[in-house]
Amino acid sequence: MLNQLALAIDIGGTKVETALVDDDGCIVADTRHRLPTGRDITPHDLGCALEVCFAASTARLGNAVIVGVGIGSAGPIDLAAGRILPKNLPLLHGFEVRAFVQDLIPDRPIELRLDGTCLALAEHWIGATRGTESSMSIVVSTGVGGGIMLDGRIVFGRSGNAGHIGQIHLDRSDDGTSDGGTLEGIASGLKSVDWAQRHGWTGQTGEDLGRSSAAGDATAIAAIHRSATAVGRAIANVATLLDLEAVAIGGGFFNVSPAYLNIVRNSARDHAIFDYSRDVSINSSGLASDGPLIGAAALIHRPHLIHHPRSITLATTR
Amino acid sequence: MLNQLALAIDIGGTKVETALVDDDGCIVADTRHRLPTGRDITPHDLGCALEVCFAASTARLGNAVIVGVGIGSAGPIDLAAGRILPKNLPLLHGFEVRAFVQDLIPDRPIELRLDGTCLALAEHWIGATRGTESSMSIVVSTGVGGGIMLDGRIVFGRSGNAGHIGQIHLDRSDDGTSDGGTLEGIASGLKSVDWAQRHGWTGQTGEDLGRSSAAGDATAIAAIHRSATAVGRAIANVATLLDLEAVAIGGGFFNVSPAYLNIVRNSARDHAIFDYSRDVSINSSGLASDGPLIGAAALIHRPHLIHHPRSITLATTR
Repeated sequence: MLNQLALAIDIGGTKVETALVDDDGCIVADTRHRLPTGRDITPHDLGCALEVCFAASTARLGNAVIVGVGIGSAGPIDLAAGRILPKNLPLLHGFEVRAFVQDLIPDRPIELRLDGTCLALAEHWIGATRGTESSMSIVVSTGVGGGIMLDGRIVFGRSGNAGHIGQIHLDRSDDGTSDGGTLEGIASGLKSVDWAQRHGWTGQTGEDLGRSSAAGDATAIAAIHRSATAVGRAIANVATLLDLEAVAIGGGFFNVSPAYLNIVRNSARDHAIFDYSRDVSINSSGLASDGPLIGAAALIHRPHLIHHPRSITLATTR
Repeated sequence: MLNQLALAIDIGGTKVETALVDDDGCIVADTRHRLPTGRDITPHDLGCALEVCFAASTARLGNAVIVGVGIGSAGPIDLAAGRILPKNLPLLHGFEVRAFVQDLIPDRPIELRLDGTCLALAEHWIGATRGTESSMSIVVSTGVGGGIMLDGRIVFGRSGNAGHIGQIHLDRSDDGTSDGGTLEGIASGLKSVDWAQRHGWTGQTGEDLGRSSAAGDATAIAAIHRSATAVGRAIANVATLLDLEAVAIGGGFFNVSPAYLNIVRNSARDHAIFDYSRDVSINSSGLASDGPLIGAAALIHRPHLIHHPRSITLATTR
């Protein structure tokens, strides 16, 4: 039998990436390709980038066949219409990515979901939440996002946007910005660097912050503590609201300090009021930066995880 | 055919209540009976109250048959073990209510769920969220609780406790209490009365607060505004995280002021960052105080809403 592969696409705030992924969730060697995105990218630019990455990823297809295309995108998305409206890619608002990809690869199933949804699928499939029924997967990077699985099924919500944990408010806004007081507004890599700089630290990036923290810089340590504590508070809230079993957490800024995970765990425990929410198991992502691509492939390779009545209804309206 | 009725039981912080409910969600006339509970109630007392209410409700059974018993309880609960651990009924922690009711009515299916879960079921069945796929139902009363429906199914979580919106933190705790900064700690009827009294108001109850507000008392108006604003912030958070279509809200304290609903709506809209979460439809409960009993009956009359794979797994472990 021919090797059956999914083409996985991940559209993010800083890059677009494609790869071929096999039925075990492994990325096929030398098929992963990326190009930059960024705030100024237009639908035309994204289309060109998708075509180039697609050609590069499929160049090594050989005797294998592509059985479908899974697309994970930065949110919000519009699941029924197959469009994306990413918060940090304003010129792409309304881009009909599902139709675009369908033109590129006709006669194959195409599934679009939030990148956080893909991540939660990947962690459930072969990562840190494998074997659990109710979980959340979280990325702490330039921004903060996530996806949710409940009672054995991925959660979509009305328009495919369930999982946007970065935009929940943890505090009253106190700085006049639209995301002041939100988890992302407090805890993202970008905001943590801002905060440290405002408190006298002189580095530039999240990685710098990790190095300063490792060297004992008090402001850098405080900035990382502040971020991880906020993530823990958000987890306590979600674990209380949804009665979760497990949380997987990863992302570039999560990885800047080996202390990050324990600060998250302590904060989540301190802010949980009930035993059931205090018991949630919080672990590092099992997939590093491969999660969104693997999860996009899971949309194709593990359709039973996404094809519940709601999504079937949506599929018929395409 | 004999009339097929569910026996519905609602175990709450101030009362336990039973009724017979038909397949259309109507409470059969003169079958609704209640006795007080309260912080000091023991398992023995609750057992006696259940027996008395059960006898009173079934006295008018006539030619009808009871096809099952649905129990909604204040949380937390332990779904797999059939036990309850209600926050405000400490002496009942560990009470095996499912086994107790099974002894009372052998050979009938018994379903136990969180009272908030029952409320969400009732609103979906015949109330304010009918026809929607993803919703939350909220009660603002002495405490604050709720239940969640996503992608057409009721959400349970690992131990049956999904829906505890009252215990999510909206602010940092600033008063040294365990629930400081939580939605319930800010917005419940009890806490709103406390807050108003600390600001010079001299009434005693939530109803008093409603009357003072209607008479133009500035402190009473502010207390109600403070509660409704916090509920709106919590709804914005949940609508963002879960991409909800609709929210139903009810409860004794919600009903103290006709202004409450609009304050909630404005606050939810002001705190929503994305269009999809700003669009959530927020309406008054369609069921008044009958919701928990009707929802407990829905556990029996509409089993397809609760019997997804997770709950089937649980059922086999009884």
